[in-house]
Amino acid sequence: MNTLQNDKFLRALLRQPVESTPVWMMRQAGRYLPEYRAIRQQAGSFMDLCKNPELACEVTLQPLRRYRLDAAILFSDILTIPDAMGLGLYFSEGEGPRFHKPIVSAKDIQALTVPDPESALSYVMEAVRTIRKELQGRVPLIGFSGSPWTLATYMLEGGSSKDFARSKALLFDQPRLMHQLLDTLADAVSSYLNAQIAAGAQAVMIFDTWGGVLTPRDYNDFSLPYMQKIVANLTKEAENRTVPSIVFSKGIGHSLVEMMRIGANALGVDWTMNLSDARQMVGDKVALQGNMDPCILYASAERIQQEVQTVLASYGRGNGHIFNLGHGIHPAVDPEKVKVFIDAVHEYSPKYHI
Amino acid sequence: MNTLQNDKFLRALLRQPVESTPVWMMRQAGRYLPEYRAIRQQAGSFMDLCKNPELACEVTLQPLRRYRLDAAILFSDILTIPDAMGLGLYFSEGEGPRFHKPIVSAKDIQALTVPDPESALSYVMEAVRTIRKELQGRVPLIGFSGSPWTLATYMLEGGSSKDFARSKALLFDQPRLMHQLLDTLADAVSSYLNAQIAAGAQAVMIFDTWGGVLTPRDYNDFSLPYMQKIVANLTKEAENRTVPSIVFSKGIGHSLVEMMRIGANALGVDWTMNLSDARQMVGDKVALQGNMDPCILYASAERIQQEVQTVLASYGRGNGHIFNLGHGIHPAVDPEKVKVFIDAVHEYSPKYHI
Repeated sequence: MNTLQNDKFLRALLRQPVESTPVWMMRQAGRYLPEYRAIRQQAGSFMDLCKNPELACEVTLQPLRRYRLDAAILFSDILTIPDAMGLGLYFSEGEGPRFHKPIVSAKDIQALTVPDPESALSYVMEAVRTIRKELQGRVPLIGFSGSPWTLATYMLEGGSSKDFARSKALLFDQPRLMHQLLDTLADAVSSYLNAQIAAGAQAVMIFDTWGGVLTPRDYNDFSLPYMQKIVANLTKEAENRTVPSIVFSKGIGHSLVEMMRIGANALGVDWTMNLSDARQMVGDKVALQGNMDPCILYASAERIQQEVQTVLASYGRGNGHIFNLGHGIHPAVDPEKVKVFIDAVHEYSPKYHI
Repeated sequence: MNTLQNDKFLRALLRQPVESTPVWMMRQAGRYLPEYRAIRQQAGSFMDLCKNPELACEVTLQPLRRYRLDAAILFSDILTIPDAMGLGLYFSEGEGPRFHKPIVSAKDIQALTVPDPESALSYVMEAVRTIRKELQGRVPLIGFSGSPWTLATYMLEGGSSKDFARSKALLFDQPRLMHQLLDTLADAVSSYLNAQIAAGAQAVMIFDTWGGVLTPRDYNDFSLPYMQKIVANLTKEAENRTVPSIVFSKGIGHSLVEMMRIGANALGVDWTMNLSDARQMVGDKVALQGNMDPCILYASAERIQQEVQTVLASYGRGNGHIFNLGHGIHPAVDPEKVKVFIDAVHEYSPKYHI
């Protein structure tokens, strides 16, 4: 179990030398793959699939059979923690995630407790163990969670939101109560990610999907410190190897320098900034993961190959780049185009590592 | 008609001294006002309201009766030009703007012609003239249009979009055709805004709502230059007064320095960057308009007053700030909270102009 045949991804996260730029895709196990859609139909609901370790393992491995990916990512959802806290997560067609019992009062926040991952989230740990076994050390497995701020928005809005009215009203008018909620969530995410590491996750990622809807001031008060707390709590080594951490806040280019305080090994960058600028901002302090516009996968093969080279050149020579899209892959993308993209990273990246 | 009782807004756009910071709100004529909803119901559809100059004038003036606003903005839609080009704009409940005949081929792009504003868009010009008459010089009137890139996305997607798949596929694979479309739209917007100025608009604003979904590279190739062309084409003086221009690209903090090339007098800033940083980036070259988080209007009166002071302090002392929200006001906001906000700008801003 401890033999890892391809550790390029882990080395790049630690800014160690690699022979070519490692690559994976956010949402690589997903709807753009016909074999995923087949399993999804077999499983029932989206949550039924998440809660079935064998099927979750199967969809995790599907993209690795098609593409030369340098990492696998656990198939799960960012909202499993609030579900384990009793809010009742479900997915309504076309509307995304919803909660049966969203937070509506201060009492609801005070009543929240940190779930025990090995009982309330045992299906996730079982999936991690199953995937690790099936991966047979081919590539590392990434575990993940939503960030406290991102989880809080869904718990307060009852699902997806356009304006985050309830979350922001609480943040503005009852900052102490919001901090209490975020602190509980930070403890829950810490214990959840550490359980994933104990079960076999070899790197962990925090998705701060909605950090970018905050002003830089509020981001620095209400999102960043709780990710910092989580990273401080994380198990740093497992199986005699460092377990690197990645933080991705969408639309947060303005605070990349501040984000280094979080202490993660790598920061995710979306496509709305140049990697060259991002690299200049962070220096040699952290690795960067990103950042090709996911829409490029609607373009021709030639244009995709060209964009891969542009992104590689934008980061430039040297260590610390993990190639990824700037956001999750879209469900309408042709799987053949993904092959073009992944192959292009393998073809064009070695010269940046000589 | 030439006597303007309050020209604070125009002076601030030109970075001239003012005694207090001028303030207005994007979408100030809108659904949060019960008197707007009454007129909207009377008019029929949203487009019926846009195309009725008397009613468009009435809703333009409504917020000025409630609040001490320093500017009025024409009630219209950013998509009137594609409608005048024959695409057939309509609004479906809950889905936003749609086109009966979106662009589906190169032929469609080649067939587009620049509409004559005084015939195809006469209802807009009539609304501008009516509003100017009714305003009686109380405050200046702002005319506006969508940016070429923003108009192109709606024309290609057929309406609102989550991923801009069609627009970006065209941009990536057929850049020449995309440039042809954008160039035609730049000509159309130039002629449209100049007609609004001739009809009485005293400042004009270009809304680049979707500039921020592009990579900085693509923004600089496909959005920025066409706004630069429009600004170069604009009538610079009317009624013996400079007609200032404002460009607002949402989520484009990364390119604020590049945006100065557009040549507009002012740049709009959303709430995802600190005004102090923005001001440092642009120096004394352009005025800045923004940038309070619209969600603050869900908070208490005290918290709103505090945030107004934070935004004023972030810009700091001196000329060139127009206070606004960082995006349009949300429909669910209590009109009383708007009064708190506008009054707070009047109360707390004078000390920044001594």
